[in-house]
Amino acid sequence: MNASVAIQVLPDVQGDEELIRVVDEVIDYIKSTGLNCYVGPFETAIEGDYDELMDIVKECQHIAIRAGAPSVAAYVKVTYKPEGDVLTIEKKVTKHHE
Amino acid sequence: MNASVAIQVLPDVQGDEELIRVVDEVIDYIKSTGLNCYVGPFETAIEGDYDELMDIVKECQHIAIRAGAPSVAAYVKVTYKPEGDVLTIEKKVTKHHE
Amino acid sequence: MNASVAIQVLPDVQGDEELIRVVDEVIDYIKSTGLNCYVGPFETAIEGDYDELMDIVKECQHIAIRAGAPSVAAYVKVTYKPEGDVLTIEKKVTKHHE
Amino acid sequence: MNASVAIQVLPDVQGDEELIRVVDEVIDYIKSTGLNCYVGPFETAIEGDYDELMDIVKECQHIAIRAGAPSVAAYVKVTYKPEGDVLTIEKKVTKHHE
Repeated sequence: MNASVAIQVLPDVQGDEELIRVVDEVIDYIKSTGLNCYVGPFETAIEGDYDELMDIVKECQHIAIRAGAPSVAAYVKVTYKPEGDVLTIEKKVTKHHE
Repeated sequence: MNASVAIQVLPDVQGDEELIRVVDEVIDYIKSTGLNCYVGPFETAIEGDYDELMDIVKECQHIAIRAGAPSVAAYVKVTYKPEGDVLTIEKKVTKHHE
Repeated sequence: MNASVAIQVLPDVQGDEELIRVVDEVIDYIKSTGLNCYVGPFETAIEGDYDELMDIVKECQHIAIRAGAPSVAAYVKVTYKPEGDVLTIEKKVTKHHE
Repeated sequence: MNASVAIQVLPDVQGDEELIRVVDEVIDYIKSTGLNCYVGPFETAIEGDYDELMDIVKECQHIAIRAGAPSVAAYVKVTYKPEGDVLTIEKKVTKHHE
């Protein structure tokens, strides 16, 4: 596992319910990739191979548009270490949720 | 509850162990505020009163420095809605962790 | 100069014109502080003393609300190095604009 | 022009000089794409076609690694509006630099 990313997708839609509906479609897509992910209140973290993760990040905005948003903003964090491993999601959060 | 923030603190230290040690001190401080918070792999979300949250955000970097980091970077997201409520952490993430 | 920050303020208003009007009020406020700043397409960078900068960051959202936004989001980057200096805005960008 | 992005690349290298050297290689790459871009103190904004921009964002981290960084972090902002136009860099910043 050479990379992890975190993405917040902000569809430009009216009202909290519609916002949640579109964001949930994006999260469903992320989960459908089968990669290990972690849904937080502002962003969803995903870990895996760098190139695959960046393709997923790109697709997230297409998903939001197809779900009905006329435009979309996104905020993305990336960590990439080709040789060796990045810190895993589990190592970062598990102890804090016990 | 008129605001929520998410903060990632990146102390400039050597090695994953030292990084985790300093970040854990920051997370301990955030938890010590008694506010509702949510630790994720890249950032910790906190919800409460806007002014109080921003004071906590400011203090986080002081904590990292006092924990031994010579310098620190931080990435902060803010949502603030003086009248009415922002979406709660619980509403945003609970269903995704069932 | 021990710190620099960059802030993007996103007022929740309708239409590009209203968005620009509110963001311009925030930028005017930042300029009024007299600190060295740099307005970019997504964010405005400011350099100075850490505590003062964080107070300015906090005030930016109040400015957006007072300018008429019912709610506001913000994305903030922070670099803080109590001893020694952070890289200046000038050192970072001047050569790229020649 | 249906999209704009802003990217901050943070190679994990020692010292400000080496940091600037690697970041400059990334900025040179971005400029070599021929797209309109804007170098700021924390991030470089680029505007163009969404899919092309996201491919450039992905490549930036490969550039940093090839330039000698053992690992790299990045912070990316995205605005995408398939129908119609996003706000241009020029519209956003020109008046503030007069």
